[in-house]
Amino acid sequence: MGLVLAAIAASQDAGHSVAMWCHDPASADAITQTRRSPRLEHFVLPESVRVTAEAKQALHPDGKAADIVLSAAPTQFTRGVWERLSPVMADWTRRPRIVSVSKGFESATHQTPTAIIASALEGEGIDRPVVGVLSGPTIAGELGKQLPATMIAASGDAGLAAVTQELFTTSWMRVYTGTDPLGVEVAGACKNVIAIAAGILDGLRAGYNAKSALLARGLAEITRLGVAMGANADTFFGVAGAGDLATTCFSPEGRNRNCGESLGKGMTLADHLERTQSVVEGVATARCVAALSAQYGVDMPICATVNAVLHEGLEPIEGIQLLMTRPPKAEEIG
Amino acid sequence: MGLVLAAIAASQDAGHSVAMWCHDPASADAITQTRRSPRLEHFVLPESVRVTAEAKQALHPDGKAADIVLSAAPTQFTRGVWERLSPVMADWTRRPRIVSVSKGFESATHQTPTAIIASALEGEGIDRPVVGVLSGPTIAGELGKQLPATMIAASGDAGLAAVTQELFTTSWMRVYTGTDPLGVEVAGACKNVIAIAAGILDGLRAGYNAKSALLARGLAEITRLGVAMGANADTFFGVAGAGDLATTCFSPEGRNRNCGESLGKGMTLADHLERTQSVVEGVATARCVAALSAQYGVDMPICATVNAVLHEGLEPIEGIQLLMTRPPKAEEIG
Repeated sequence: MGLVLAAIAASQDAGHSVAMWCHDPASADAITQTRRSPRLEHFVLPESVRVTAEAKQALHPDGKAADIVLSAAPTQFTRGVWERLSPVMADWTRRPRIVSVSKGFESATHQTPTAIIASALEGEGIDRPVVGVLSGPTIAGELGKQLPATMIAASGDAGLAAVTQELFTTSWMRVYTGTDPLGVEVAGACKNVIAIAAGILDGLRAGYNAKSALLARGLAEITRLGVAMGANADTFFGVAGAGDLATTCFSPEGRNRNCGESLGKGMTLADHLERTQSVVEGVATARCVAALSAQYGVDMPICATVNAVLHEGLEPIEGIQLLMTRPPKAEEIG
Repeated sequence: MGLVLAAIAASQDAGHSVAMWCHDPASADAITQTRRSPRLEHFVLPESVRVTAEAKQALHPDGKAADIVLSAAPTQFTRGVWERLSPVMADWTRRPRIVSVSKGFESATHQTPTAIIASALEGEGIDRPVVGVLSGPTIAGELGKQLPATMIAASGDAGLAAVTQELFTTSWMRVYTGTDPLGVEVAGACKNVIAIAAGILDGLRAGYNAKSALLARGLAEITRLGVAMGANADTFFGVAGAGDLATTCFSPEGRNRNCGESLGKGMTLADHLERTQSVVEGVATARCVAALSAQYGVDMPICATVNAVLHEGLEPIEGIQLLMTRPPKAEEIG
């Protein structure tokens, strides 16, 4: 995701200086030489993007403090990355502007990526950053091929949202602005739990009716959580909510959906993780959502069922039966 | 759809008398004898459902006025069906209770099915009916196999919604109640236009990012229309809105999505309709939505583009380019 967005920003007519930080020198060297990624068919990183493992170079792409920093580390690594990067920002004379594209809650704290970043910088005594998020249904492989896509750039700072929109808008990428970064982050984290449920339905061959109901009712319950946490319900019905959830539930490639499909076919979680050697974000997120749902007093039957299947030994088929046979009620949304 | 719902109602422990009306005696005889439908694998209609082409028998299943009538005719035939059926209701001593499961707008009037029914009965001098709707992501073939599904029973009359919920709730069918039948009907009609757009993206191999963005932004614009017409925005985010839209956009079987896929691959609409000999509801609905969007002053760029591709010779790829390159803006929902 970081690679593709770096390429877009570097390709704009405005001629921005773009630097990209990698956590280890070997990766930085490899990308510098090949300009390619094994995961992104057809993708070539423009020569103008400087790739480095040096924090100081990355955060000062044309010799002075970066105007905008895009944070693309996996959520569980975000704090460590910013604790490592931020010392070189100690002499910045204005508040850093940081846009996160990470999705998830930190397992230990249940914080969203922008909260993690703010907290990591605070620990280093850096000025409180101006934060924003950029999110949407964005399978990286499709972006690499420049297939059409949409994102939302959301920030409490309208200027940052507008600049982010401008930086990443192309003929094939439509970027909306929004004012609710928290909603975007809650939607982006929770969708992985619903995607595991979608995969379970696929593994059980439950059909499109069931999966589409899951999408609608899953969206309703993550909206309820978001609203309880202070987000705006509308955000959940936009490209970062319903849109990203649809991609995550229906694309056959997603790691979370795939994990659910293995569970639906009778494989254990341990066997699936062992076999695929992949990080399935929703597995940790399910625990966070269960904790947040209790903390905010929000009923989230689908996420609770996924958590019970993942971590409490509930059989997937029993989980579906429990969900289907709850007492009949009125449909409630956000 | 009518067959499956008749079977559910007849199978309830409460032991309801269920009669089913067919528009021609030959079909009624065939179903009476075989209890099966060529379109519904594994489905068997219970012996207790009496199938008839006689309006009087159908509307008086146990000798007296039916407690509830389910209307399942295709939208464009709904008026004719009710003009034909309703004379036998002339002596009913209380208002008929009619639940519609049809989806679409009548081409000539842009009315929804429940409005058509009320208007057809009014023409016959029958008491104004108590109307409701029953809708959701319900591919009939999956229902025939009793795969899990959800629907919403919505009516301005809470009693009718509750009875409908009770009638169709089973271990594999979860029915919610709702109070906004208009929203359910607008969502059910408009989703077929968005599904044609989804098919166009499939035909162009545009990917999951694009299709999921379409789902979110399509949902936003049909919500705007619904709200302008007097519906409740929440309805569009429920099983009859986001849920049904997801099934219609992602299931490979849908006629509307299939039609769009042919267009995306370069086939003309006339050739597709000639080749498949199927009724593609969204083709007529696109014109209705264009008219309603103008009448209510609602901006619906995706539906307008689909209408231009279907009826004004716009090339699909140009349509996508037009949508992607509109001026950048904030994301607006309902």
